Amino acid sequence: MSYKPFPLTKKQIEDISIKYETPFYIYDEKAIRKNAKKLVKAFSVLPGFKEYFAVKGCPNPYILKILRDEGFGGDCSSLPEIILCEKSGIRGENVMFTSNETPAKEYIYANARGAILNLDDISHVDFVKKALEGFPELICFRYNPGPLKEGNAIIGKPEEAKYGLTREQLFEGYAKAKEYGATRFGLHTMVASNELGNDYFIETARLLYELAVELKEKLNITLEFINMGGGIGIPYNPGEKEVDYTYIANGIKKVYDQIVVPNFDSDIKFFMECSRVITGPYGWLVTKAIHEKHIYRDYIGVDATMADLMRPGMYGAYHHVSVVGKDNVTDENGNLIPDSDAHVYDVVGSLCENCDKFAIQRKLPKIEIGDFVVVHDAGAHGRAMGFNYNGKLRCGELLLRTNGDIIQIRRKENYDDYFATLDFKGLATFAGSEPQIK
Amino acid sequence: MSYKPFPLTKKQIEDISIKYETPFYIYDEKAIRKNAKKLVKAFSVLPGFKEYFAVKGCPNPYILKILRDEGFGGDCSSLPEIILCEKSGIRGENVMFTSNETPAKEYIYANARGAILNLDDISHVDFVKKALEGFPELICFRYNPGPLKEGNAIIGKPEEAKYGLTREQLFEGYAKAKEYGATRFGLHTMVASNELGNDYFIETARLLYELAVELKEKLNITLEFINMGGGIGIPYNPGEKEVDYTYIANGIKKVYDQIVVPNFDSDIKFFMECSRVITGPYGWLVTKAIHEKHIYRDYIGVDATMADLMRPGMYGAYHHVSVVGKDNVTDENGNLIPDSDAHVYDVVGSLCENCDKFAIQRKLPKIEIGDFVVVHDAGAHGRAMGFNYNGKLRCGELLLRTNGDIIQIRRKENYDDYFATLDFKGLATFAGSEPQIK
Repeated sequence: MSYKPFPLTKKQIEDISIKYETPFYIYDEKAIRKNAKKLVKAFSVLPGFKEYFAVKGCPNPYILKILRDEGFGGDCSSLPEIILCEKSGIRGENVMFTSNETPAKEYIYANARGAILNLDDISHVDFVKKALEGFPELICFRYNPGPLKEGNAIIGKPEEAKYGLTREQLFEGYAKAKEYGATRFGLHTMVASNELGNDYFIETARLLYELAVELKEKLNITLEFINMGGGIGIPYNPGEKEVDYTYIANGIKKVYDQIVVPNFDSDIKFFMECSRVITGPYGWLVTKAIHEKHIYRDYIGVDATMADLMRPGMYGAYHHVSVVGKDNVTDENGNLIPDSDAHVYDVVGSLCENCDKFAIQRKLPKIEIGDFVVVHDAGAHGRAMGFNYNGKLRCGELLLRTNGDIIQIRRKENYDDYFATLDFKGLATFAGSEPQIK
Repeated sequence: MSYKPFPLTKKQIEDISIKYETPFYIYDEKAIRKNAKKLVKAFSVLPGFKEYFAVKGCPNPYILKILRDEGFGGDCSSLPEIILCEKSGIRGENVMFTSNETPAKEYIYANARGAILNLDDISHVDFVKKALEGFPELICFRYNPGPLKEGNAIIGKPEEAKYGLTREQLFEGYAKAKEYGATRFGLHTMVASNELGNDYFIETARLLYELAVELKEKLNITLEFINMGGGIGIPYNPGEKEVDYTYIANGIKKVYDQIVVPNFDSDIKFFMECSRVITGPYGWLVTKAIHEKHIYRDYIGVDATMADLMRPGMYGAYHHVSVVGKDNVTDENGNLIPDSDAHVYDVVGSLCENCDKFAIQRKLPKIEIGDFVVVHDAGAHGRAMGFNYNGKLRCGELLLRTNGDIIQIRRKENYDDYFATLDFKGLATFAGSEPQIK
């Protein structure tokens, strides 16, 4: 049972919603910091540990600034994400640029700012050399283990993933990079998403450490770091169990002692690039019940939509839902403990898409119009994935500070934002009728 | 075989891409008009025919202005879409407001602008009366046939859909609306999406006409219109067959003559709210090949991503892909006719999501870096569904006019757009460290 209760009372949320209309995201700084400290403490058994927070999960610079304060770097997949890191004080080699199908200008920018380039393909060795008119001193490669026997059973089907270099290409890539003047090297992989099995991560680290030894033997290259990627999952369903940082870190340390210590004179630093496990459980989407409907099922309509949180609609993902101030005690399987107040609802947004449902046939306390309905575990891949389909405006973000203050860290979109890319002046002179054929 | 070839030559697209960098959408005005005229001509056998273009499919006011010129109205699901219609000259009862979980302010706005309110729920009768401090003269209800035997086999599972009123509620709703002063009535349903079976639409119309007779008998209400909704599909796979407007229209006319003519003294107008079939086949996403990769599969990386076109990544939807200036003749099943140039690729965007693939294991002509790779049937639910995940900026839209001119009808997003909701000044004074506990 790993249910994270919503950190505000009904009175508090009523007061907030006067200033900031629902829907909005709210993040709990205290909980994020506590979790970050716990992660750093656990993994500090590994030399040079650094977590590069994957910006894509929660691209808000206020959150990034807090994470930087906790010693995190940033993992970026695009130029705008690098800018967000810079604005948040995450700079130089604290930025890992993990991209694919990358345009030259993004490599040029990332390199100019001193970020670590994490190459996704063998062809990018020459591409980067040409784009930069030279080659970086420090370079990282992303490994895709594919269907190799040396992989492990819990790695899904990396051979169908577009990412990374094959084992053969890796050796070719490092050799070429060395020839081009690189003197410092990193190795990265990322072969899972939202994984809750602790041992999975230990086996992934083993894969990388074994490769490090081979790289030393065959190419006389000593890796400066391995980056295990992200993929640590969170228990979206309160019946699931969160991963155990200490177990994973100690397990990886054991592998490190077995493989790295006897083979290398220097340390190999250990990096990760998680985001879901860092902010996911500490962000909530707060909505208000605005409509109740009874047809073939009972529906509660809320003022947020799939435009604010895509995961349920896009992946059919489960998110825990609670009603502020009402009993929502759940059993170990995440089901509400039945009482006379339990009702079964579909909790829906207003998009003209039937998948715009935050909860489907879910047991919840009886909901009244005006109740605050909270969607849990929305602190990563939440606001970040929003869209404007159906003319919907994406909501804003608030931060509950450790001293209890609440500040706005992203305003909600307005009509001007939605219309920003349209030229209404040009439209006025656009006849709409057919132009004369030349 | 209903393959719509890309309307520009390699030379033309090379010239355009100097002024407007790829990726971009381009729409073919001539083809859209031809299709609109064909639709109107076919359905003009039905009294008072009007197509209310579902704005959500292609919310570009330049396109809306063209469609208005062809006699179309607009179907809106939100307030911003109503504004887009107004800017395009689609006003008053030419706007149908088909929403759900609707906030009061949207009903108030729509009503003030003279739009037709299409109510999604029985509770909205009183909700609207209260919000408007009165009741509209003209009102429409959305019908959800649910699991009723009177439905038909090809209607999926409307009983799991959040939309509309049950049959019982419909009668209650019209009676109440009449009591509240409504004197003009419409009936709407929408029970399919991307349906290619011609007879499906005839049966849907029959359902509505039969209900019209019952409403007359039981409540002495004469419907002014029925709105069959949208849902007409398009052959995304070139092996599929497009629907036959004339067959559908004549089929519905036959039902009309059987059911409506003997039972009513006046006409019942026939409305639709399609978008996919209107603009879908006449819009293309034009990308450039920027990367070639060979690991466990062969990949072509293009400069567009799932952020520009979600359907393949979100639904696993098939979109035909062609390479400008290269042989892409397909057989009746949509497969490239094999020749020595055929290669099998995954065509991918740069998102850190493995589902960011426009084509998976697809036979295509051999692609070189710099080739223009075009994604077909992207004229509806394309740019409209884009997001900014991974810090990606959504692309712009061009219009190929009937006289051959090419104009920009939406600019691409820039960094300022992406950062618009963030307060960087506030960020500068945001310490990032923990505030003192009060």
